[in-house]
Amino acid sequence: MSVKIQYSEIYTIIDLTKIKRKEILLKMNAEIISIGNEILCGRIIDTNANYIIKKLEEINLYIRHVSAVGDDDEELVASLKEAYHRSQVIITTGGLGPTEDDITFQSIAKAFNLKLIKHPEAEEHMIKILNRIKIDISKSNLKQAYLPEGSRCIINSYGTAPAMILEKDNRIIIALPGVPLEMKNLMTKEIIPFLCQKFPNVQHRQSRIIRLSGLGESTVNEKIKDFIHKNEHLNIGIYANPEDIQIQLNALGKTSQEATAISDEATEHLKNLLGDFIFGFDQQSLEEVIGNMLKKRNFTLAVAESCTGGMLGEMITSIPGSSDYFKGGIISYDGEIKEKLLGVPRETMIKYGQVSEQVARAMAQGVRKKCLSDIGISITGIAGPGGGSKEKPVGLVYIALADEQQTIVQEHQLRRDRQTIRLRSARRALNMLRLHLINIEIINS
Amino acid sequence: MSVKIQYSEIYTIIDLTKIKRKEILLKMNAEIISIGNEILCGRIIDTNANYIIKKLEEINLYIRHVSAVGDDDEELVASLKEAYHRSQVIITTGGLGPTEDDITFQSIAKAFNLKLIKHPEAEEHMIKILNRIKIDISKSNLKQAYLPEGSRCIINSYGTAPAMILEKDNRIIIALPGVPLEMKNLMTKEIIPFLCQKFPNVQHRQSRIIRLSGLGESTVNEKIKDFIHKNEHLNIGIYANPEDIQIQLNALGKTSQEATAISDEATEHLKNLLGDFIFGFDQQSLEEVIGNMLKKRNFTLAVAESCTGGMLGEMITSIPGSSDYFKGGIISYDGEIKEKLLGVPRETMIKYGQVSEQVARAMAQGVRKKCLSDIGISITGIAGPGGGSKEKPVGLVYIALADEQQTIVQEHQLRRDRQTIRLRSARRALNMLRLHLINIEIINS
Repeated sequence: MSVKIQYSEIYTIIDLTKIKRKEILLKMNAEIISIGNEILCGRIIDTNANYIIKKLEEINLYIRHVSAVGDDDEELVASLKEAYHRSQVIITTGGLGPTEDDITFQSIAKAFNLKLIKHPEAEEHMIKILNRIKIDISKSNLKQAYLPEGSRCIINSYGTAPAMILEKDNRIIIALPGVPLEMKNLMTKEIIPFLCQKFPNVQHRQSRIIRLSGLGESTVNEKIKDFIHKNEHLNIGIYANPEDIQIQLNALGKTSQEATAISDEATEHLKNLLGDFIFGFDQQSLEEVIGNMLKKRNFTLAVAESCTGGMLGEMITSIPGSSDYFKGGIISYDGEIKEKLLGVPRETMIKYGQVSEQVARAMAQGVRKKCLSDIGISITGIAGPGGGSKEKPVGLVYIALADEQQTIVQEHQLRRDRQTIRLRSARRALNMLRLHLINIEIINS
Repeated sequence: MSVKIQYSEIYTIIDLTKIKRKEILLKMNAEIISIGNEILCGRIIDTNANYIIKKLEEINLYIRHVSAVGDDDEELVASLKEAYHRSQVIITTGGLGPTEDDITFQSIAKAFNLKLIKHPEAEEHMIKILNRIKIDISKSNLKQAYLPEGSRCIINSYGTAPAMILEKDNRIIIALPGVPLEMKNLMTKEIIPFLCQKFPNVQHRQSRIIRLSGLGESTVNEKIKDFIHKNEHLNIGIYANPEDIQIQLNALGKTSQEATAISDEATEHLKNLLGDFIFGFDQQSLEEVIGNMLKKRNFTLAVAESCTGGMLGEMITSIPGSSDYFKGGIISYDGEIKEKLLGVPRETMIKYGQVSEQVARAMAQGVRKKCLSDIGISITGIAGPGGGSKEKPVGLVYIALADEQQTIVQEHQLRRDRQTIRLRSARRALNMLRLHLINIEIINS
């Protein structure tokens, strides 16, 4: 595809986990079997396993083994037997559909010498769904209502395939559909509550993401490591995207209330340590936070972009309702546009170059004026791979912010490839705006 | 992160594979063991396995089992023994580093009762690399030079950890590093050539991606299905991103030459069936193709964006050297900007609305004039979730293209969420430009 960098790519991880994995594993084993030729053929990456792992971690259940097998009865039976030997909780995904290669229930029955028993509630649900979408029930659909004897049928509200929980000789076998939406829904609504009740001794976990901008991950680590090492009820990871940093905070408690209390206290502590570098929590994005700040202050915004070519505008307008505060902008990729549309004096460009503090300043002031906005932001830089020199290397970026009172310019030297340099430039511009809006608030209050 | 849609998200797959997987599997078994707590803790999704699967498929080796285990000697030894029992080729990734929890070589040695033998070439390479980055060699580094007896040491040019190939009793055990860059390099340069030579009977595969824009995947399927079903040496999948379509063409032959010949013939056939809907091959992007066309014709381009907020400009400028043909643009999010900077008459906006054929037309003409470019493209639409009405629902988008001769306007009704509607709008604008540039060529020739 065209855009090479996935904005959500996570490329550095500092792991500060303090959980003694081994000790926990000795008490309790869980494992996942992902079923389907599409995984073994490389057509899809198995993201279901990762989701289940994370969900179980929230209730302090840890996975010791993950495997993927094709839609093959013999292989699946063998894998189920191995898993049964190894683990107390086995979760399978996939193979519950109506087609011939959906064999999970049959293979479970075969592996543990069980009959397949019809579950009328599964059949009823299936007929209801198929009626709604006006499809006749077929023999292959009916197959889905036959579950291994002794199992509990779990109705899947998002699809025809029921899931199941089978308890046998101190083992729990759970079969979930492979469609991510259906699997996630059942995991959250059915499986997690079931396991919490089954293993009341498991610790509860309260997860929170703390989002930061403007600091590198090693600085974040330095700032918070003493706090983390002191607190044994916390389990913390620092994740870095090309620009923003996330702290994943997991608080453990005997009850959900206790976990929440620990999490809240830790959050307060981290707020003191990290101050304004924190821009949001959980799913909040920097764009959203800035949008709320602008709306609250009744400010409008315009952008002038050179090397980012529209990326900053794209990010700002990704937020529904951004038309309340975003007026627009000028993509001044060419010097002529800088002069003609933004009013950057030609002499300034000749004297200092298009990538310079002076041009960034004139661009921000120009776009503010041309778009009649309260604030103007500009970006001009060398994204590479060509165009750099000894004096002005690839990655040199100027970001300016102009409002009624003043114009501020920042110089950045960014690294990595073209797309990352562009991405970082746009993210830093957003963060510059955020900090500026906080400062105004402080000055005015 | 801020941008919710990953541009490369693949969400629909039509599988036309004709390979008789089961038959092939009976002849030859391969499997993958991914090693590392980071997978079982959910911190990373194991994408290495998927890469290896695809690479092996190219030489017609199929994976029958994938598993992931933690950095635990006991578990890894057990998994290796199971794999040895089950498969002829076993590929492990991870656990080759210098730290205490990197145990792959030790566990392989233990599982198959082998000694660990020092490989001087591995030590030498390690010292060379560590010297270069000015790090003293430590005892834990030296551990990496000890490989199970009988194995071949494979020098890893991207890191200190050597990889290994062990042949034992008609089984092949391959241990690769877990760092994707290192693993991929070794897989391509060392492991694939080794396996090709080891299994000369495996069919050769020539893979090619054919990239299309402007057709839905079911239409692509309709157009090509007869051809596919006739040809048993072809193995074809259709993959759809939110906008572009990819045909993955795998040609199978007894030799690499034969596979290439089949692939070339099929490509020619598909070109006839799909014509101008094909915009490129393999890693080519639509932006790159358009850039080359503009450069060849010596045309310049400018964009006027409303609902996409800069996304089209961002895509165009993702290509290095785009300053040769891209002059810039105007993000006219607000009506005032449309009037003031693009010269869209206020009466036109009042009479027809900002999302209308007339406004799109005036925007494209305006940006062409203001930016002094040969071609101007504009996008105006309702990305939602708010702002729609019965007459103008969410997803209604107008795209216009103006050049010296004419102005063309397209009306689109797009579906899904805000970000997908924006993405599709930008992709369709790019494709409209591509087809326009082809047409000009035909008219002028």
